[in-house]
Amino acid sequence: MNSPTPSPMFKKIALVGIGLIGSSMAHGARKHCLAGEIAGYARREETRVAAQKAGFADSLHDNLESCVKDADLVVLASPVGSFAEIAPQIGPHLVAGAIVTDVGSVKMAVIRDVGPHLPEGVHFIPGHPVAGTEQSGPNAGFAELFEGRWCILTPPPGADAAALEKLKTFWERLGSKVETMDAAHHDLVLAITSHVPHLIAYNIVGTAADLEEVTESEVIKFSAGGFRDFTRIAASDPTMWRDVFLNNREAVLEMLGRFNEDLSALQRAIRWGDGDELQNFFTRTRAIRRSIIEAGQDIEAPDFGRSQKEKDTD
Amino acid sequence: MNSPTPSPMFKKIALVGIGLIGSSMAHGARKHCLAGEIAGYARREETRVAAQKAGFADSLHDNLESCVKDADLVVLASPVGSFAEIAPQIGPHLVAGAIVTDVGSVKMAVIRDVGPHLPEGVHFIPGHPVAGTEQSGPNAGFAELFEGRWCILTPPPGADAAALEKLKTFWERLGSKVETMDAAHHDLVLAITSHVPHLIAYNIVGTAADLEEVTESEVIKFSAGGFRDFTRIAASDPTMWRDVFLNNREAVLEMLGRFNEDLSALQRAIRWGDGDELQNFFTRTRAIRRSIIEAGQDIEAPDFGRSQKEKDTD
Repeated sequence: MNSPTPSPMFKKIALVGIGLIGSSMAHGARKHCLAGEIAGYARREETRVAAQKAGFADSLHDNLESCVKDADLVVLASPVGSFAEIAPQIGPHLVAGAIVTDVGSVKMAVIRDVGPHLPEGVHFIPGHPVAGTEQSGPNAGFAELFEGRWCILTPPPGADAAALEKLKTFWERLGSKVETMDAAHHDLVLAITSHVPHLIAYNIVGTAADLEEVTESEVIKFSAGGFRDFTRIAASDPTMWRDVFLNNREAVLEMLGRFNEDLSALQRAIRWGDGDELQNFFTRTRAIRRSIIEAGQDIEAPDFGRSQKEKDTD
Repeated sequence: MNSPTPSPMFKKIALVGIGLIGSSMAHGARKHCLAGEIAGYARREETRVAAQKAGFADSLHDNLESCVKDADLVVLASPVGSFAEIAPQIGPHLVAGAIVTDVGSVKMAVIRDVGPHLPEGVHFIPGHPVAGTEQSGPNAGFAELFEGRWCILTPPPGADAAALEKLKTFWERLGSKVETMDAAHHDLVLAITSHVPHLIAYNIVGTAADLEEVTESEVIKFSAGGFRDFTRIAASDPTMWRDVFLNNREAVLEMLGRFNEDLSALQRAIRWGDGDELQNFFTRTRAIRRSIIEAGQDIEAPDFGRSQKEKDTD
């Protein structure tokens, strides 16, 4: 484990942002010997101090220029709203042949904000590992976060084939499966599989907190009836999610419109006591859960294995 | 373990319905020696055969009369929509002093449907263990399901104090914490902590399944972005949930109205690019998650412990 491989995939990986995803990539790159050197950038001193203690980076920077200097892989891993400010600052300091990628949850806006600021000879391949937990910050990361999860790459037209292949291999070494798609399609797919689910989770938690007839203490006590599942993703990083919604507006509003239409139909079935419609609707959603488990995208144990886990720790 | 206690709490427990909850109660009653005898009723032969194999009941019945005969505790544990038909059938066969309870997720409708059919001298104390998994049927049950979870009892005015106390002790022996409240308040609390969360989970899964621009295969592959969490509760028993919505209409529509209002405000903030409003909203929902974990109603491990669990099984 301690002997460095003679030639890692990248000489220097610069992580611009070292929260959950950035620190997990650092841990994973270390574990699989993918980087000669790992540099991390964080705006806040508190983050750099925590990262220093966690020890996943060889150097930590409060300065973008020194972080990306000589890096052959630069990863933007801060909230996507910060990219428009970061890209023009790093552009002039990138070396020819470097790959620039990101881990943002939206892709059209990233291409808009980053693309124009990168010099000729630098390969820009936006990416999105569809993995995470509700925790954030440099202490939340772990090497296995990407194992078995999909990473989506959205190379712009004319992207360098060798750079794309190399980045794909990098994610595969971290344990991911990799799919390539067009950025606009990515934003639509993620609007339904991630962005709208987060929005409605945040929303139901907010609704419950604001009630007058039901106390917060009751909401908490009786949350095992279903509500607690939503609080997990509603505990995700607020800045990251603000930026996602500001930067994937059209696709989110489109999917939310469909969600609302469908919910109105269910609401109407409840109001009119249409039991058959309700039961048919509730029956067909079971199959999707089954497919997700079969595809290895969730665990099979009931209740996400929580009950089993509680028993384990008794 | 095999030596029966000289005097269990109940001589005979009759479980009218032996799905997830009924079978878990049987397992728990066995484990904690709370019943001299356990009788189970199921309408379908398939269910009785499965229960026979699982071995949690001393006798299995296709006949309500023989199941409840001489029972000093009768538990209605079938979908709440079936109670109106069951209650008049069991009423004439109940012994004086018996406690009749249920485990339904709604309480006003249960009192309406069951109460009038029970004879004088029988103690009717409706109940609702706020516990479950997305699995159903006689093989899904386990003795620990109720441990650390709340059970709500909604005794009608004038209910027998000794019967209430005995039922409370029974649930505590199964590992539950017990709270007593008025049936109307129960229905309102559960509408927000359980019924509306299930409805929106079913709904988002349905919306995703119906899209033309995004394939079902894409929804499944990229479900780890948040969507997969919703598929768990959207895999719950369709008949049970149909009956919940048909029997808690007013409270569900009231809470759904508030959910929709709040969602419209978030939708508007997205449309108008109001980042401050989004971030403030997303920040305050974090605290509720923390309180739920502190109250022992969810586990602290990130991602419900799924990542950890996946590592364990590697």
